[in-house]
Amino acid sequence: MAPTDTELLSHAIAEARAGRATGGIPIGAALIVDGEVLATGHNKRVQLDSPILHGETDCLAAAGRLPASVYARATMVTTLSPCDMCTGAILLYGIPRVIIGENTTFYGGEDYLRQRGVEVTVLDDPECIELMREFIAAEPALWNEDIGEDA
Amino acid sequence: MAPTDTELLSHAIAEARAGRATGGIPIGAALIVDGEVLATGHNKRVQLDSPILHGETDCLAAAGRLPASVYARATMVTTLSPCDMCTGAILLYGIPRVIIGENTTFYGGEDYLRQRGVEVTVLDDPECIELMREFIAAEPALWNEDIGEDA
Repeated sequence: MAPTDTELLSHAIAEARAGRATGGIPIGAALIVDGEVLATGHNKRVQLDSPILHGETDCLAAAGRLPASVYARATMVTTLSPCDMCTGAILLYGIPRVIIGENTTFYGGEDYLRQRGVEVTVLDDPECIELMREFIAAEPALWNEDIGEDA
Repeated sequence: MAPTDTELLSHAIAEARAGRATGGIPIGAALIVDGEVLATGHNKRVQLDSPILHGETDCLAAAGRLPASVYARATMVTTLSPCDMCTGAILLYGIPRVIIGENTTFYGGEDYLRQRGVEVTVLDDPECIELMREFIAAEPALWNEDIGEDA
């Protein structure tokens, strides 16, 4: 039986928690192909001092170089609505489906993804919302830096 | 005197050539702030087996974590029209200006950048075009992989 969207999201949440546990921003992602987890990743701005390793891009990097035919069967699962960069990465590789844990904390490129033909599902998951709520309360400056909005 | 766009492009071209010389895809970028080169980068798909290190993202990674106020004064210079991912990275960080060497080989997210308020200049540079022409003739499969279009 194919895993449910919520089951798939659990892999991204585990990554988000791992990111927070190592002092980072709690956003995680998983790349699913044919119902299996091909790769996972999490935001590593803090851990690797990187402005380009968000959950989704770190996950794509972990997956390594893949043929377009694999991306074409893939689903990107992410705990938080994807920023413009991660939206663009999904579009570059023609990933046809995105599952988003929540878009209450941050509303990213969802409309643009849909406009470009990507199927987007938002789960409105309370665990994802709480992860971000706790993090932003604790580290507002770091969060603003990650979305390009610090002063 | 402020450097000309063509002078700025020369830093990106040097990176593109360095990328090709190390067996990679000849696309380079430079991040300019207050007329100075803050960082440079080039596509490292081959060198680091990475699907996320394009010229622009490698350059942003090399620049490290920057405050939004620095990105707000920056220009991204790239030898080739930016793909969807790099377009998104430019938008995420609110970089207000992009100088593109050429868009004959590949036409990326320029229209979307302009639509989102970014100033885009295309130089139609023959050296950039020739770098890509030679590369694509030699390595068509690698090029298609980099733009998510391989079979």
